Amino acid sequence: MKTKLSEQISEKLIINTLLKKLNFNKLGTFNFENDAGYLNISKNYKTIVTTDTLTENIDFFRNDPPESVAQKLFCVNLSDLSAMGSFPKSYTLNISINSNINIYWLKKFTSKLLSLQKKYNVYLLGGDISKTKEFSITSTFFGQAKLKNIISQKNCFLGDDIWVTGNIGNSYLGYKILSNTKLKIDKKLKDAFIKSYLYPNPCMFGGVASKYINSSIDISDGFYGDLNKILNNNLGAKINIKNIPITNYLKQIIKNNLSKINLNNVLTWGDDYQLIFTANKKYRNKILILGKKNNIKLSIVGSIIEDNGIFDDSMNLIKNISSFDHFC
Amino acid sequence: MKTKLSEQISEKLIINTLLKKLNFNKLGTFNFENDAGYLNISKNYKTIVTTDTLTENIDFFRNDPPESVAQKLFCVNLSDLSAMGSFPKSYTLNISINSNINIYWLKKFTSKLLSLQKKYNVYLLGGDISKTKEFSITSTFFGQAKLKNIISQKNCFLGDDIWVTGNIGNSYLGYKILSNTKLKIDKKLKDAFIKSYLYPNPCMFGGVASKYINSSIDISDGFYGDLNKILNNNLGAKINIKNIPITNYLKQIIKNNLSKINLNNVLTWGDDYQLIFTANKKYRNKILILGKKNNIKLSIVGSIIEDNGIFDDSMNLIKNISSFDHFC
Repeated sequence: MKTKLSEQISEKLIINTLLKKLNFNKLGTFNFENDAGYLNISKNYKTIVTTDTLTENIDFFRNDPPESVAQKLFCVNLSDLSAMGSFPKSYTLNISINSNINIYWLKKFTSKLLSLQKKYNVYLLGGDISKTKEFSITSTFFGQAKLKNIISQKNCFLGDDIWVTGNIGNSYLGYKILSNTKLKIDKKLKDAFIKSYLYPNPCMFGGVASKYINSSIDISDGFYGDLNKILNNNLGAKINIKNIPITNYLKQIIKNNLSKINLNNVLTWGDDYQLIFTANKKYRNKILILGKKNNIKLSIVGSIIEDNGIFDDSMNLIKNISSFDHFC
Repeated sequence: MKTKLSEQISEKLIINTLLKKLNFNKLGTFNFENDAGYLNISKNYKTIVTTDTLTENIDFFRNDPPESVAQKLFCVNLSDLSAMGSFPKSYTLNISINSNINIYWLKKFTSKLLSLQKKYNVYLLGGDISKTKEFSITSTFFGQAKLKNIISQKNCFLGDDIWVTGNIGNSYLGYKILSNTKLKIDKKLKDAFIKSYLYPNPCMFGGVASKYINSSIDISDGFYGDLNKILNNNLGAKINIKNIPITNYLKQIIKNNLSKINLNNVLTWGDDYQLIFTANKKYRNKILILGKKNNIKLSIVGSIIEDNGIFDDSMNLIKNISSFDHFC
């Protein structure tokens, strides 16, 4: 009962000319000539699984470059694997194509996937191509980690340092610029912020430092929202807002455009895919050394306290938000 | 940037009231409160992965019962795992909802998933809920098998017996009835054939008999098409058409409705999800004993020959079709 795609963009053409380059001749992929594949996860490791669907007009704009959609697909999934303390291994793709998507779009998309695969040392295990009205891509990523190193979101302890990787807020500003918000910004900076939004990079520090980390999450729903998930209605956070890593450029832009953006917007917006993690204070130096070694910026932004809620360093309540649920 | 679903059918409501029942409190699911989960595949086993997207108006009709969609989702994936020689363990769900889907639909759908999970001893690992114009569900299923028992589609040998499990064609007749083809059929039989189409059952014999099987595929694109994939443009098949397992009821109906359906239709239509597999003749008895023990009907329909193509037992060419590719 499967509807065949049109001749110009047949399943066979997509698989043979574009996707077969992405299996890296790994045994378990059967060169995409089997209905299922197998994962080569080393013995003594657990397979970590995360999955996300990106839908046109929700997770990306219709005219976004295909390379951006590929990068977002990798970023949302890899940052989840990293937050769990794992290293990525492979992934599957379910592509639901509509009439707006042609072979040239898919060529650019898969070329970008190829370069991302090389960068993150993963390969495509298999997938599915179908036809629909609204273009969407589902990807399921597989990582590996030793059971004892798997990090849960909700395992922070009283007194833990709260860390943030990289810088946050750049993606938000890029989105605002693309949404035609009139802002006073230098042209060169404008392009850099747009790039942060269209081509986010996952922070892969979770797998590197997993043995020191108690709880971790990637920032996809905003700094406050994701920190709140770590707290799990159980503990609180005392935050030194000045230590939240926001570039001086962004701080200056906020200052110059106060009627249009403010710090609260930046801290309640996701899409930077940096990590928030908590760790015992005694590991502070070890974590900093690992950050330096891996060229990852790290900031201690606060600590886990007993009082429920998120507070500033004078113990004024900033956020008292109830947590919301995930799926995976 | 994620669009929230409407209040009536929020992500939180779906997860808390419907989906949390499906994780069976397994450790790796984190009660769906993490962005990723982990698989509990035993050491010494490989993880088998298969994935499929079911889209409204393509893989099911808008008014099909939610229970039928759930059963098809299980069937298409479980029969792939079985064909690879594996036993199912868990799965993920990516649900893309449109405005036609309400909480009652989802309740029936997830209740059926629950009963299927119990039947096949699997649990839901996690997933993703999003909004779209055209309702679709992507599911990725995980099975386990020892590396030496993993079956490839394209590993048949000269002289192998060709086996088929169960009966084929019943789903095709059910589809024809639902598509308003006027056929002379008894009312009770009509309902039974419709049931075969709406509620197909995967044949799980692949995992049971994997050590005797050389190559295997589930019949999703038709007996001839799927047999052809096993042959891989390399070998041929000599088929005794009389031995292809078609019920006497269906044979009679074909006889009574010759202007509307014929045997060729039945053999080029999929959706029965039975298995075609090949095995060395020396295992004939062992396989038959396993079939009896597991209450699975088995038929030897032919053998693998050197001449390329599919032939009848008088060596007349039946099909000379070029293979088409898969993805996973």
